Amino acid sequence: MSRVYLDHNATTPLRPEARDAMLRAMDVVGNPSSVHAEGRSAKAIVEKARAQVAALVGCEPTQVVFTGSATEAAALAVAQKSQHGGRFAALPTEHDCFRDWSEKELPAVHGKAGGVDGHGAGEVMNWIMQGAPQDWSASHTAAGLLAISAANSETGVMSAQGKVAGNHRVNSSRQGTVPYSVVADITQVAGKTSIIYAEEKPSYAILSGHKLGGPKGVGALVNFTANDPIAILRGGGQEMGRRSGTENVIGIAGFGAAAEAAQRDVEAGKWDRVEKLRNILENALAAASKTTIFVGKEAPRLPNTSCFITPGWKGETQVMQMDLAGFAISAGSACSSGKVKASHVLKAMGYSEREAASAVRVSLGLDTTEDDVLRFAEVWAQKLKKHEARAA
Amino acid sequence: MSRVYLDHNATTPLRPEARDAMLRAMDVVGNPSSVHAEGRSAKAIVEKARAQVAALVGCEPTQVVFTGSATEAAALAVAQKSQHGGRFAALPTEHDCFRDWSEKELPAVHGKAGGVDGHGAGEVMNWIMQGAPQDWSASHTAAGLLAISAANSETGVMSAQGKVAGNHRVNSSRQGTVPYSVVADITQVAGKTSIIYAEEKPSYAILSGHKLGGPKGVGALVNFTANDPIAILRGGGQEMGRRSGTENVIGIAGFGAAAEAAQRDVEAGKWDRVEKLRNILENALAAASKTTIFVGKEAPRLPNTSCFITPGWKGETQVMQMDLAGFAISAGSACSSGKVKASHVLKAMGYSEREAASAVRVSLGLDTTEDDVLRFAEVWAQKLKKHEARAA
Repeated sequence: MSRVYLDHNATTPLRPEARDAMLRAMDVVGNPSSVHAEGRSAKAIVEKARAQVAALVGCEPTQVVFTGSATEAAALAVAQKSQHGGRFAALPTEHDCFRDWSEKELPAVHGKAGGVDGHGAGEVMNWIMQGAPQDWSASHTAAGLLAISAANSETGVMSAQGKVAGNHRVNSSRQGTVPYSVVADITQVAGKTSIIYAEEKPSYAILSGHKLGGPKGVGALVNFTANDPIAILRGGGQEMGRRSGTENVIGIAGFGAAAEAAQRDVEAGKWDRVEKLRNILENALAAASKTTIFVGKEAPRLPNTSCFITPGWKGETQVMQMDLAGFAISAGSACSSGKVKASHVLKAMGYSEREAASAVRVSLGLDTTEDDVLRFAEVWAQKLKKHEARAA
Repeated sequence: MSRVYLDHNATTPLRPEARDAMLRAMDVVGNPSSVHAEGRSAKAIVEKARAQVAALVGCEPTQVVFTGSATEAAALAVAQKSQHGGRFAALPTEHDCFRDWSEKELPAVHGKAGGVDGHGAGEVMNWIMQGAPQDWSASHTAAGLLAISAANSETGVMSAQGKVAGNHRVNSSRQGTVPYSVVADITQVAGKTSIIYAEEKPSYAILSGHKLGGPKGVGALVNFTANDPIAILRGGGQEMGRRSGTENVIGIAGFGAAAEAAQRDVEAGKWDRVEKLRNILENALAAASKTTIFVGKEAPRLPNTSCFITPGWKGETQVMQMDLAGFAISAGSACSSGKVKASHVLKAMGYSEREAASAVRVSLGLDTTEDDVLRFAEVWAQKLKKHEARAA
């Protein structure tokens, strides 16, 4: 029996449109920085893709800076903190590409029900206001730069009532209105849902090609500010000086084509079917296990993601057992799944160490079938029974 | 008549071996960080490529850190300067990916004859010794980190008598022996010549996939030191924590396959034919123009590169005229060729502004034919005559 891939939040199969665009780009020899015909052809590929990504994201093409990953885009956004009050922090539920730069471990601003609102929670507010000088009104900068993901990769829980959190102001009796800037991680929402911004846009957004049917190794920073970002990679001046290094023309072609196809599928409502399958899956799992907790089930969630905790049955063990049985799922985010440690996301949400270590993530794709999820649930239930028999 | 591509130092056509490896990688869905079978398959692709690149470079696979470009590898090397005395400088003939980080504009250490020796020239020595404390012998760090390219991309001139410059010591009567560290830019030599290191290896080397028949958008840092480099991209901990961000699996597969094929071709002596064609070209051009200067002709040079100055005939004009006639060449390095400015490399070598602005680079590939270079020389001579007629 063929394997069933249910780890689409880690990475997705290459869309046929992306593959075709990449094959065509393979035949274009030029360097996009070269002025001759071959160079101009390569540049045209990059610019077409830039427009396709911009259309998906809802921005101007000139606001898109191609990078080698969302991780690089995150580092590039963080490097702009001097433009935003000089400080950077990430919520504890964020991806490590932001947490590793965070100057302060901010507390979770949500509970087990999920739902980061991005503008709430006392300590986050305190952090923002600490960055504000006494004579705030005289200053035009922000009190800090805050990373907020639009949807969490492990749980699928969406922040800001399903919108992409934007720059915001908090009110302080002492300092008046204190603005702060946001870098939004739209990696998991892009290509799975319509991207709807809060009333104000964030200063930056980051996303990745391989989460929406493009190749791995290409991402983008979206710069919504009026300023050019300070480059962290310097040299040839590519990407209008915002990111030097010869462009990944083949990868960018694939990213652009995938973005266009992903946008079309979102607009056609193709994820509604996936959401139904996810719910069928969760119902089948719940029927097999009274103790299993579905994380963020009551919160706005990505249509394809189910994160569930079966206390006492280690997530790593579940992943390995299901892998041997032909199903690819994960425990935690892909980047850290090689390390056997409990999810920082779940712990930040208030789950215990034991609960967080007993979670797995199943993330569906557009090609997932009802048979796939029912087979998964059946095999998982069998493995659970064996686990319970051993544990008893 | 089909176009003739003579800009291989800017970027090369994708080798069939790279294309095949990339096509195979397109069918592997997993994220290399995922523990399931799909993830392990993706990881195997990356590790195979790492061994292929290591074999070309002459290092251990674990010393290879994949990046999104040689430019990123350069930035990563520069970020290690705290391990090497805290200072970084690049020679003025280096690529902008190093010059843009250089704390000091060091003078050229060579003249019009070419031949950077990397260990000579008074001011470079002075810079090195300025970094040495009085009680140098008590310290184990280096006096600084210096970027030296093994071959210049614009002229093809090779440093250190055709070897890759390595870490070195200079002797000071006051301070004794002062060591310094080198980051070698092997981007242009890798895949065109055997890589021969000087007696001591450099601390780091950088290279790029697309200069040797791999795709654009993938490069590598080779870390010859005993320490893990400090990451400039943080997050998921990929590349053993040395460069976070999901790996460009398809691009890396192509880089590896291209490296293996390039090594095979170097070992088979395939560039000897190219060198003969380059010499045929230069003889034909010299026969057509008494005033044309061939840069670095007497120095050890890459087999495929000819950089020539025809004083008074602007390089940009030559590139455009030859482009219209069906030939792709460049004026200066590809990254900066969009900008109309005289080559910083040629100026650093002692050529005048007018001479430096009148240079073009023709860089041949393994698929270049004698007919290609003779046709080029014929058309170029015709254009030169028209230019001279206009100028007269």
